[in-house]
Amino acid sequence: GKDGLKFETSDGDFKFKLGGRIHADASFSSGDNFRDADGQRIEANDGTELRRGRMEFSGTFFRDWNFKSQVDFADNQVGVKDMFINYTGLDFIDIIVGEQKQAFSRELQESSNDMIFIERSVMNVLNESTVDRALGLNVSRRGRNWTGQVGIYGDTIAANKRKTRADEGWAVSSRVTFAPIMEESRVIHLGVAGNFREPNDAGEIADRPLQLASESTHMSNLNLISAGITDIKNIKMLGLEASGVMGPFSIGGEYTNTWIDRKNGESSLNFNGWYGEAAWTLTGESRNYKNGKFYKVIPAKNFSFTNGGMGAWELAVRYAEVDLNDNTFKGGKLSNLTIALNWYLNETVRLMAGYDKALKITDSPLTKSDGSKLDNLDTFMIRAQLAF
Amino acid sequence: GKDGLKFETSDGDFKFKLGGRIHADASFSSGDNFRDADGQRIEANDGTELRRGRMEFSGTFFRDWNFKSQVDFADNQVGVKDMFINYTGLDFIDIIVGEQKQAFSRELQESSNDMIFIERSVMNVLNESTVDRALGLNVSRRGRNWTGQVGIYGDTIAANKRKTRADEGWAVSSRVTFAPIMEESRVIHLGVAGNFREPNDAGEIADRPLQLASESTHMSNLNLISAGITDIKNIKMLGLEASGVMGPFSIGGEYTNTWIDRKNGESSLNFNGWYGEAAWTLTGESRNYKNGKFYKVIPAKNFSFTNGGMGAWELAVRYAEVDLNDNTFKGGKLSNLTIALNWYLNETVRLMAGYDKALKITDSPLTKSDGSKLDNLDTFMIRAQLAF
Amino acid sequence: GKDGLKFETSDGDFKFKLGGRIHADASFSSGDNFRDADGQRIEANDGTELRRGRMEFSGTFFRDWNFKSQVDFADNQVGVKDMFINYTGLDFIDIIVGEQKQAFSRELQESSNDMIFIERSVMNVLNESTVDRALGLNVSRRGRNWTGQVGIYGDTIAANKRKTRADEGWAVSSRVTFAPIMEESRVIHLGVAGNFREPNDAGEIADRPLQLASESTHMSNLNLISAGITDIKNIKMLGLEASGVMGPFSIGGEYTNTWIDRKNGESSLNFNGWYGEAAWTLTGESRNYKNGKFYKVIPAKNFSFTNGGMGAWELAVRYAEVDLNDNTFKGGKLSNLTIALNWYLNETVRLMAGYDKALKITDSPLTKSDGSKLDNLDTFMIRAQLAF
Repeated sequence: GKDGLKFETSDGDFKFKLGGRIHADASFSSGDNFRDADGQRIEANDGTELRRGRMEFSGTFFRDWNFKSQVDFADNQVGVKDMFINYTGLDFIDIIVGEQKQAFSRELQESSNDMIFIERSVMNVLNESTVDRALGLNVSRRGRNWTGQVGIYGDTIAANKRKTRADEGWAVSSRVTFAPIMEESRVIHLGVAGNFREPNDAGEIADRPLQLASESTHMSNLNLISAGITDIKNIKMLGLEASGVMGPFSIGGEYTNTWIDRKNGESSLNFNGWYGEAAWTLTGESRNYKNGKFYKVIPAKNFSFTNGGMGAWELAVRYAEVDLNDNTFKGGKLSNLTIALNWYLNETVRLMAGYDKALKITDSPLTKSDGSKLDNLDTFMIRAQLAF
Repeated sequence: GKDGLKFETSDGDFKFKLGGRIHADASFSSGDNFRDADGQRIEANDGTELRRGRMEFSGTFFRDWNFKSQVDFADNQVGVKDMFINYTGLDFIDIIVGEQKQAFSRELQESSNDMIFIERSVMNVLNESTVDRALGLNVSRRGRNWTGQVGIYGDTIAANKRKTRADEGWAVSSRVTFAPIMEESRVIHLGVAGNFREPNDAGEIADRPLQLASESTHMSNLNLISAGITDIKNIKMLGLEASGVMGPFSIGGEYTNTWIDRKNGESSLNFNGWYGEAAWTLTGESRNYKNGKFYKVIPAKNFSFTNGGMGAWELAVRYAEVDLNDNTFKGGKLSNLTIALNWYLNETVRLMAGYDKALKITDSPLTKSDGSKLDNLDTFMIRAQLAF
Repeated sequence: GKDGLKFETSDGDFKFKLGGRIHADASFSSGDNFRDADGQRIEANDGTELRRGRMEFSGTFFRDWNFKSQVDFADNQVGVKDMFINYTGLDFIDIIVGEQKQAFSRELQESSNDMIFIERSVMNVLNESTVDRALGLNVSRRGRNWTGQVGIYGDTIAANKRKTRADEGWAVSSRVTFAPIMEESRVIHLGVAGNFREPNDAGEIADRPLQLASESTHMSNLNLISAGITDIKNIKMLGLEASGVMGPFSIGGEYTNTWIDRKNGESSLNFNGWYGEAAWTLTGESRNYKNGKFYKVIPAKNFSFTNGGMGAWELAVRYAEVDLNDNTFKGGKLSNLTIALNWYLNETVRLMAGYDKALKITDSPLTKSDGSKLDNLDTFMIRAQLAF
């Protein structure tokens, strides 16, 4: 059916589901005639890209034992996404062991199939390289209108590639959400999350120096701001979330603060970022909310030439900032504005158009071709998405 | 069933299919005691290879929305093949968005499962690196005995890996076919195709200089002729096709002409290639034709020890040429003869044997080990194929 | 059902099965403060790892034609495992063509899902790089209590990557097993195997010098002993196997001897390894035996809080040795002791804990940090496994 290919034994003890997603993108930038730190001409490369191409196999054994394996083949490379075992045989907690998202940030935890915008906000620069997926043990509990989870995670999913003293790092993170209002089309969502990460013996994350960078698009290979951070002692992170839905309107925002303690006499660093977003479903549908996460709009009437259905149309805007400067450390500071127009043809297919304007760029490693400071970058993106 | 694993809802609005293919090859060459341009001893390496190992997941949502995702794992690398969304809700055209074959050349468009010979012809040297799969938008229409399609495509499927000014290239291509005769076992097929491609900002195709080269087998790592072309301004290509089927006999041929305009004062180049082939199904079956493409023979009676079925046996021969020389530019010129003996045990399994003789080799980067010019290379190949 | 997702046509001529496995590991080592040959500090890296993450698609066409394709995505890399066509239409032999395990060693032939210990023994250092999977043709026959198989195999699954004279190598191997006693919970198993391998033209295996090395864990990137062997003329190997099951108790052992002839005046080498293991299922179940291989314990009663089932618990111990020294050639010699505690929650899920103690380490390329000889390494491992 519409959720993909599903099978179930008659007693419901064994279930299987095959799923997949195709995100086919094209992106174009203007105002991108730059020079890099070496004076070489550089731009935000335009072009097409299979942003995500995933297959997914999930299921249940003996009623209580679930698994999910999801692998990405975009860029002609293997990206193991979820690959975990989930035990639901206990009344009071769920247990997940394996590769999974860490317990931090609504924006990061929500599926890329459900995002309002084509890419996550620039705030995610702080989260993507620290609290994205890892191999670990997560326990969670949820009530009618709240969720709580805590997990302990390793560093990389792969075998250690360093031939030196490099015991892998680890992290503990936790996210708690609460919805004081949770009705069909009226929601108030609040969330708070914390993360503590120890790097590997070499002071690195994922076998290399921590790289916090904002690529203008995934396709572009252009980082407007960029910070490479070595000699890490530990990382502490705090995340705050608030969102509200009122019929076809929704607003939301998140804030992340990152403290990085360093060794070998390097100074500690403190970075932060945030975003605020507002969305309006022109065709009247509400965004969906469940267990501390938002899900995409389901069209009231699917698009069809025969029956005159329009699908759902959504308009959204987001302002976001990230600040990688701290005292004399200048990783750069960036704010931007993003506009999205989404057409949900049905539950499976979505067409997206996006416009992103870099508003304020401070301490970028790039300059304009005439040597002056960067003051703008306009990016246009389109996506065809099929996901189930 | 025999077409793989298929599912369908009772109203036919949702369908799913799992497929796959295994092509296991061995190849052997003789007369291959050569030296490369540096005087190092080199040969067409013999050995075994998983030529193709693919999984495929395709289906339909809400009657009109199809998807196909096909990924290759041969060489222990990811090769995203088809990965597209197909909309069939319009009466007059079909729309395909995503990674797909460009609209050019019957030989290239036909599936490797259906090819008469183990490898495509040397003419394909011109097509493989320019009009093979890309991310794009294709619209097509077809009548009872004709097809027409036009598409616009990007360059690589992956994110841009260059850190310089390198906006991706793009192309427009179109292929039209017409079958003045189209009966059960009598077909005349005609086709014409054109392609215009703009390279990336660096004058390259797929993030690197255009490489036109004829490898003696996929396994061998030996290029009999080879041309590396930089500073490309644009590429124009014309393709012509003609084929005929008369009962168990079929003949066919294709011609490709490629014009490459170049910048920075480099001279323009004009290359061409062609092949002619003839096949005879000893067991009497006809090759199958549909929508401008030929499909493999379906045995009248599957091979079986119990019921005495023979499967289908096919004998085929092909002559092909490609010319990468133009005035003072010497990429080399090559002609060869290929003989194929195929045993279709049933619709799923096929055993193939092939012999390939390089007939005339001009301006090769290689020499024989005694320093004289190359005049021959004999290659023997076998394949076990299971595809559904 | 519990064996994964299975489909079958009513006449049984067409069958399909989807399977998968997740092995999520964590490993910790102590007593690992070493220096490598260059004096650099090195250790057995601790951490987490997705040891195996595989999807599998197998099936049958026209009753007699089976296929299996199994691909691993661990380490975010493609590893094609089984990818073969199997013909069972002959009464007296089975034929397998494609990527498959070579006919050598019970330990290597048994699935990683069925192993008693988290990793194979140090004896496997001799087998892994010579008689693991390859592309080939295998014929086998089996009776009620015996099996026999012989195969001819190529070298690598991938296309040759060398641009020199490097025709791929090939091998012939054969394994015969016999079970003089084969009852429900009483088994005596005996086996013998032989392998002859020719390297490629460059005297290499799998496109590089033969590397025999014992990594302390797959995660660690630390080789306690290591031998790189060039100029190989051929390799001959002999394997002996014996095992016994008596109710919940089982014992077993294997011995491998490897003779390496070399060219260019290099001396011939003779290495050997062996292991002995004993296992006790605390909950009383017997290990399962079929066609010359052992399979994991099936719990008499699945683990469940509701019905009080315990699953199956298994305790096992293994002693193993491998000797890569021969006369003046010093690849090193290693013996170790491994203890395993396994909890089979049901047929699909297993939790494993392991302890490994390196007992005697001779001629290691490593030293302790104070310059003295290595005398110990303690490794602790845990695994969560879901496989079907």
